[in-house]
Amino acid sequence: MAQGTARKSDYSDKNDKANVLSLPLAAGQADREPHSYERWLLNKLMRMAGSPPIQFRLWNGDVIEPEQSPARFTLHLKDHKALYSLVANPNLAFGDLYSAGRLDVEGDLPDLMESLYRSVHAARQKWPRWLDALWRNHNPRSTGIAEAKENIHHHYDLGNEFYQLWLDQAEMQYTCAYYENADNTLEQAQLAKLEHVCRKLRLKPGMTVVEAGCGWGGLARYMARHYGVKVHSYNISREQLAFAQAESEQQGLDNLITYVEDDYRNITGQYDAFVSIGMLEHVGKENYPALSELIKRTLKPGGIALLHSIGRNHPMLMNAWIEKRIFPGAYPPSIGEFMAICEHSDFSVLDVENLRLHYAQTLNHWTERFEANADKVTAMYDEHFTRAWRLYLAGSVAAFRAGSLQLFQVVFTHGDNNQLPQSRQDLYTFPATPEGA
Amino acid sequence: MAQGTARKSDYSDKNDKANVLSLPLAAGQADREPHSYERWLLNKLMRMAGSPPIQFRLWNGDVIEPEQSPARFTLHLKDHKALYSLVANPNLAFGDLYSAGRLDVEGDLPDLMESLYRSVHAARQKWPRWLDALWRNHNPRSTGIAEAKENIHHHYDLGNEFYQLWLDQAEMQYTCAYYENADNTLEQAQLAKLEHVCRKLRLKPGMTVVEAGCGWGGLARYMARHYGVKVHSYNISREQLAFAQAESEQQGLDNLITYVEDDYRNITGQYDAFVSIGMLEHVGKENYPALSELIKRTLKPGGIALLHSIGRNHPMLMNAWIEKRIFPGAYPPSIGEFMAICEHSDFSVLDVENLRLHYAQTLNHWTERFEANADKVTAMYDEHFTRAWRLYLAGSVAAFRAGSLQLFQVVFTHGDNNQLPQSRQDLYTFPATPEGA
Repeated sequence: MAQGTARKSDYSDKNDKANVLSLPLAAGQADREPHSYERWLLNKLMRMAGSPPIQFRLWNGDVIEPEQSPARFTLHLKDHKALYSLVANPNLAFGDLYSAGRLDVEGDLPDLMESLYRSVHAARQKWPRWLDALWRNHNPRSTGIAEAKENIHHHYDLGNEFYQLWLDQAEMQYTCAYYENADNTLEQAQLAKLEHVCRKLRLKPGMTVVEAGCGWGGLARYMARHYGVKVHSYNISREQLAFAQAESEQQGLDNLITYVEDDYRNITGQYDAFVSIGMLEHVGKENYPALSELIKRTLKPGGIALLHSIGRNHPMLMNAWIEKRIFPGAYPPSIGEFMAICEHSDFSVLDVENLRLHYAQTLNHWTERFEANADKVTAMYDEHFTRAWRLYLAGSVAAFRAGSLQLFQVVFTHGDNNQLPQSRQDLYTFPATPEGA
Repeated sequence: MAQGTARKSDYSDKNDKANVLSLPLAAGQADREPHSYERWLLNKLMRMAGSPPIQFRLWNGDVIEPEQSPARFTLHLKDHKALYSLVANPNLAFGDLYSAGRLDVEGDLPDLMESLYRSVHAARQKWPRWLDALWRNHNPRSTGIAEAKENIHHHYDLGNEFYQLWLDQAEMQYTCAYYENADNTLEQAQLAKLEHVCRKLRLKPGMTVVEAGCGWGGLARYMARHYGVKVHSYNISREQLAFAQAESEQQGLDNLITYVEDDYRNITGQYDAFVSIGMLEHVGKENYPALSELIKRTLKPGGIALLHSIGRNHPMLMNAWIEKRIFPGAYPPSIGEFMAICEHSDFSVLDVENLRLHYAQTLNHWTERFEANADKVTAMYDEHFTRAWRLYLAGSVAAFRAGSLQLFQVVFTHGDNNQLPQSRQDLYTFPATPEGA
């Protein structure tokens, strides 16, 4: 199987100074017995985390039970250095240790993560300042034009074959699906999402659409195929664009779709609709005013814009491990932060919908398929990579279930545009889910 | 006809120092000829206002035509002092002069106001700082518990008979209606609004609801009648509550509805739903964190909250005349400002809908009925009052049409609540508009 061009080493950075404590023991080296203050440290750590129902099994087999409730999960710490690394910076070390196999989990991984998120969320209000400073997540790295290329390359150029193993077979959607009914399949829900987005944009044949960040091009194809609109789709992931272009040609849609390998900041022209699904997370707050001005000048007077993005209930830094290992530069905004885009250019917000639990369900479906193909993933990359992605997917399920992540679809238009839909009734006149998909 | 207890003199405060220039000439006193620099001043004023298609007719009959486009409207200035007053502070003086009959309008009043709003909105970006400072609107007055009573009394205690002359006959709704179809009557659209709100709250029989600011109690009665829920409704307008209580008893709904004459800040208990329609405008930004905490403690874990409020596309002060003469203490927030309520207590926003043009249509309907009853209004109060209200209604139509005001319905719940509706489809399964209303 052909592999993508992104470096798998990004997922196990052994030269990372912050992680120097977490270097494992040399192969074959026997670990010593745990000290009593190490037990004390783990107890303290769990109290700081709000006493979740988690017990520790140490490298010598000793078990440290939770203080307040019977254990539902077990964390297995495989060497004493892993313990210090975890206590020093749990936000980053949990993921690195798990990926390296030095921390293991017994019990359902998403359930454990959800339990941990909920308990930490409640507990962190009472943390002393020094602890919050010590463990804090950090500001995301730059999303300037040059850095954005690196950031996107890191994640999206891992290889189309990899993503094909676990994304939907319908349109390769790597964003939240829309489950009109709880028992919809992933394919149905992803097609329903595309349909829902098209309806929110009130597309009509002959209209023009510009798309900022197009993944493997599925939305553009759906729009061209079902709505007869002309689409310009921008993306800086070369692997994704190659796939998108080939599909578009094969389906005879290339007369309606232009895929452009360029940064969204270089969009030119004027369009009836501006749409961006799952790119805003990578834009960076400092670029919101510029994005706002870009939409202002590229959206026709009667046009509608839709941004679909992971978000927060209130401003919060990204988890350090996710930002460092999985999504460099990522930052999910609260609606208040998001409004910098709308308020900067006198846009009028027409509609905000939160699809949080739809993303938890999407991630459930991805996780099932990922696990069914875990051996293939390990063969394509390595065990470290598979474990990192297992944790990332499970942690994301958990974050959407626990409410630490949200999914917002925001529809807006120019402040002086009076050609508005009478209501949102037209979004719901017949099911968005295709029959038999 | 019985009158309310609010002072009509609030609408023509002759002792207002800011207005000393605008004192009219003594009765019978003949005005002098206009000076050439007075023409220059008016030309300058119109240029600052973005050169709208408006001409001036002066007190001696002279006409000053607009510089850039043929006149569609005429402003008649009836004395030279009115001119100085207008130039010194147009935001406040326009309303006061119009109310006093010293400024008159030829042409459609809402159309003129809309044209003026659009033109000023575009022009004000280029205003020199000193002009923005000179003409600026001001921060709204305090909305502390004691002051709120005065603020609300000023407007809502004008007399129920007055409001009955022009509000809908169905449920006396003094807030934005919901026009599923553009040709709905005011009664249909107000009932559809109540239905739409109940659906967004996902009410079921036996649930409990608390309402902050209940007007004449129409929503509470609708909820009790159609959804079988128990409602506690708070209001500090005594006139409105007397009406609400009498209606509830007459309709045999008083076993389900408790009207409470008290400030929303004194709400106690826990409820399945928290709803507030058209009160947030009177709350004051400085009280948003406290309101947030109030909702946090009064909303049950699985409960839904809905706030319906006039708003803005971006933060902006209230028009000085409206804040001073019509709605003391009022401030319509942008969504970004609104989010202080949701983000302060980790609420999760589920749904935002903007009904801007529905409010323009509601105000059209109110204006028609108001004009049909203008003689009765003058008989109840005086000509000054009728003119002030005519301008306020026309100016509001214009503000919603021009996009300087928005109408937001925001639905949210506790951040950790996972009992969420699958989608918004259930809001649209059958028309919210009653047949034959």
